[in-house]
Order: sequence, then C-alpha cells, then structure tokens
Amino acid sequence: MTITITAFAAALDQGAGMARDMRVRWALEEVGQPYEARLVPWEKFKEEAHIARNPFGQIPTYEERDLTLFESGAIVWHIAERFPGLLPKDADARARALMWMFAALSTVEPPIVDREIVEYAEDGKSWQGERYAMVDERIRGRLNQLSARFGDGEWLDGAFSAADIIMVHVLRRLEGTDILQEYPNLAAYVARAKERPAYKRAFAAQLAAWENTR
Amino acid sequence: MTITITAFAAALDQGAGMARDMRVRWALEEVGQPYEARLVPWEKFKEEAHIARNPFGQIPTYEERDLTLFESGAIVWHIAERFPGLLPKDADARARALMWMFAALSTVEPPIVDREIVEYAEDGKSWQGERYAMVDERIRGRLNQLSARFGDGEWLDGAFSAADIIMVHVLRRLEGTDILQEYPNLAAYVARAKERPAYKRAFAAQLAAWENTR
Repeated sequence: MTITITAFAAALDQGAGMARDMRVRWALEEVGQPYEARLVPWEKFKEEAHIARNPFGQIPTYEERDLTLFESGAIVWHIAERFPGLLPKDADARARALMWMFAALSTVEPPIVDREIVEYAEDGKSWQGERYAMVDERIRGRLNQLSARFGDGEWLDGAFSAADIIMVHVLRRLEGTDILQEYPNLAAYVARAKERPAYKRAFAAQLAAWENTR
Repeated sequence: MTITITAFAAALDQGAGMARDMRVRWALEEVGQPYEARLVPWEKFKEEAHIARNPFGQIPTYEERDLTLFESGAIVWHIAERFPGLLPKDADARARALMWMFAALSTVEPPIVDREIVEYAEDGKSWQGERYAMVDERIRGRLNQLSARFGDGEWLDGAFSAADIIMVHVLRRLEGTDILQEYPNLAAYVARAKERPAYKRAFAAQLAAWENTR
C-alpha cells in the first residue's frame, strides 16, 4: 500500500514548514509510515486534476488505495486511527483528542489566518494598522484562554497525540510575530514539539522539497 | 446515563437557531437521545464554572458521565460514533464524513464568521463597505467550489450523515444575506435538511429555550 500526499512545489515559505502538508508529514513520521509527496505548484491548485482531489483547491491531500482525503485535520485523524502511536486507547481520551483538533482549527487558527489576510490582502490599505490591532486582540484572547488551560502540562491532554500536531502547527504560524513569546508555557510547548525526531524528519523532508523545486 | 449540553440563555438570535448548540440538539434528535439543556447567559460564559467546561468560554458543551467535551464538531462526531444513525458503516466513508466536517468548520465557515465580524466589530468604520466586498468575495469563492463538487446530489457524500448537520448549519449563517440564493443546489440542500423531523424538533427546542429565558 502506497500513501501519497500532495504538498507545495516551490512553497511560498521557502521550506519553513508553514504549509499544512507539514502536519501530515509529521503525523506519518510519528507512526513510521513511508509516503510519497506529489509536489503541486501553486498555479495548478485550481486545475481539474487537483480539484478532483480537493474541491477547495488546497494542499495537503492524502491518497491510499481508492480513498482520497483533504483537510489536514481529517487526514491526521485518519492516520492516527489507522496506525498506532498518535491516540490514547481510552475512548474518552480519544474524544478529547479530536476535540482539541477542532479547537485548534476552528477556534485558535481563524484569527491567526485573519492576521495573514491583514498582512497580505490588506497591505497598503489605510485601515491596515487598526485591523492589525483588532485581530491581535482576538489572537491574544484565544491564547490567554489556551495558556490558562494548558498550565504547566507537557502536552494538551496527557500523552502526546494527534491533537498536539495540529495545535503546535497552528501556533507556529505566529512565528513571524512576538505574540507567542508572551505565553511562556505555549512557547515552551511549541519548542518541545520541535525537538521530536519525527518533527525534525518531517521538517527536513519539506525543506528538501522546496530546495528541489525552487 | 444523562446527557447535558449547554446552550444560550436569552440567545442573541432570538431563537432562530443560529447558535452552535443547534448542531448538537439536531444530532441528538437524529439519533433519538434525550438530553438536558443547561442554559447559560452570555455574561456567565467567562466565569469559572463555564470555563471549566470549555476553556474558550463558548457554547455548546456536552457532558456524559465524567466526559466533558466542547467544540460542536467534536461533540457531533462523538454522538455519531456513540449512537447509530449518523455515520455510514464503511470505514472510508466515515473518514470522508469527518473530512466534510473539518471542511465545513475550517474552510467554509471562517469567511462567514469574518462577515459577522465586519457586521458587528467593524460597524461604523470607514472601511466597512470595502471589507464587506472583500469578505463576500472569499465566501463566494468557497461556495463556488462547494457548489461545483456538490452538483445535483442530495447530501454531501451519499447518505445523510453528521457532516451534513455541520455543513448545513454553517451555510445557514448566511441566511441574513442573499448570497446562498446564488447557489440553487446549496440553497435546496439547506431547505431539504430543514424539512427533517429531527431538525424541526431541535429548532423547536432551542426556540422554546429562548422564549423561556428572554
């Protein structure tokens, strides 16, 4: 059985691991599953061949036999259910792992993505500064709440799980700002995750993909 | 076993079923599980008792024995796994159902929520009109893609599933606009869902909650 994912060719972040294929690569490295990466250049995201994989024209996608998935959250969850190593055995703890994945993607990430919209789509607008202030307040509101619940734990809910992959990668999107450093427990959480051998292998793989296609 | 959810007391939408507890009520009605609703007024969302249930101070939450969940996507998925009626048996089809839930919450809903931010948080700003145009373009971009994939199907992926609950409720947030009507297949999809007896029972329950607490 071959697993094939799609990832950016010539990624805009120049191999910094910000694109969402990093989440899938990391999960596959954690469970020790080899995979092939089909590198898709940005200008082909909206073409029929890619839209057949993902109707929203985004990466990553995941193909295994005749199953094709999109949405990084769903792909990481599928990998975690399919191969051991990323989910606890207890049913309640598994439900909480999925809860934290939805929290990362539906509650924490949206204002962080909105900040990128302010940065790029609203660049040069008269209101850009005021919008930055508004969106940063929303981001800090979410991080205040996350930090308070996180406390001095190591991972989100006991042992490392698929949820930590998603949450850490969402928080990494703040790396171009100083915001995450205001929350020492969350900054330490991200740093702890980046020390994992599986993270390092995934990071190296997507960096190599950029170097080979730029 | 008692299932207890939290929902708005005196909901801002005056019982129109826009708050996210509607998703959980609807799922519970589809699987025929009774539940109790703990109605929480807006001013108590950030108080300790509610933060213990949901660190982000939002509704809905779900309590069953000693399991407490937040995030409507995770709750609806838990209900669908726990009780028959909301998920196909085939493992690949189940993976696709979760994929559509993430697509609804991470890809389709964010620009729709952003429109509400423009409507309320940016009301009176000089740039409000220009931001409406920008965010409406993003919403239409997503709906164009969703409509193209949806085609003339009845539900997202064959039989009605938990994913349809989430996607329909996300699309319902556009009801105050004319945007959804530009996509006849998606408008018909939402109308079809609203005819389901379980939907009607859930809608009546949250309307009654509003009438009893306003």
